[in-house]
Amino acid sequence: MNVSMRPIGFVRSPYSETAQVPKGFGAQHDAEGTIEILPEYELGLTDIEGFSHLFVIWVFDRSDGWELLGTPPTDTKPHGVFATRSPYRPNPIGLTVVKLVGRDGAKLRVVGLDMLDGTPVLDIKPYLSSIPESELRRGWLDEAEARRAAQQ
Amino acid sequence: MNVSMRPIGFVRSPYSETAQVPKGFGAQHDAEGTIEILPEYELGLTDIEGFSHLFVIWVFDRSDGWELLGTPPTDTKPHGVFATRSPYRPNPIGLTVVKLVGRDGAKLRVVGLDMLDGTPVLDIKPYLSSIPESELRRGWLDEAEARRAAQQ
Repeated sequence: MNVSMRPIGFVRSPYSETAQVPKGFGAQHDAEGTIEILPEYELGLTDIEGFSHLFVIWVFDRSDGWELLGTPPTDTKPHGVFATRSPYRPNPIGLTVVKLVGRDGAKLRVVGLDMLDGTPVLDIKPYLSSIPESELRRGWLDEAEARRAAQQ
Repeated sequence: MNVSMRPIGFVRSPYSETAQVPKGFGAQHDAEGTIEILPEYELGLTDIEGFSHLFVIWVFDRSDGWELLGTPPTDTKPHGVFATRSPYRPNPIGLTVVKLVGRDGAKLRVVGLDMLDGTPVLDIKPYLSSIPESELRRGWLDEAEARRAAQQ
């Protein structure tokens, strides 16, 4: 079973190369840019202005291949791809939460981009609720941060 | 440009029909079930046990077609598809945050399913941080809730 997806729009971001995207400990994703939805889908943005944050589901269109284990920039040990945000995934899907600043027709002005300029977008959904931080456990990432803090 | 995706696994949930999935105001998603990853991807789950919550990206495989405007079960007015969680989307992608209870090999025991039994899963990612509830605005959903409260 294969599922075929097509872009509903594209990201306009300040990053043209992967090396420019902040990664690892303390990475701040405050890049501003736009998500330009294709004209035929603009009606689907109706009332989106009321939401402060959006999920953007997109394609890692410039990462080749995938691996089940990989060492992320935040650690020195390998972890399973489904326990990381690695771009080398069986299905090259990216997920980013952005803050919606405004809308000009089919263009969404957003903050928090971590995608390259030209990245194809597959879907946008409203961000409705959060898991309280006090209930979150972050596995290897917490451990890697603790190791790093102990070394300093 | 088309992107072809293939399932990495399937959801085992208590819901066999859409009508059984809680929807609308006050819907509680506390259904328990499993996500069964295909054997060839099991290694990609390495270290996932350390995370309390996961993003599950999946396919609305039993919804036909799509519409740019639709009236959700939580309102009496139509809204753009990208401002709702409607299953009738240009790309039939679902996104659910689940709580990870445990792992048995390639099976993840989770709470919070809102998918039908047999739903194909495309990707799993760790849930790393939340937007504070105080910073969230929820547009038409807040308005619909306020109208409903005023009518009671």
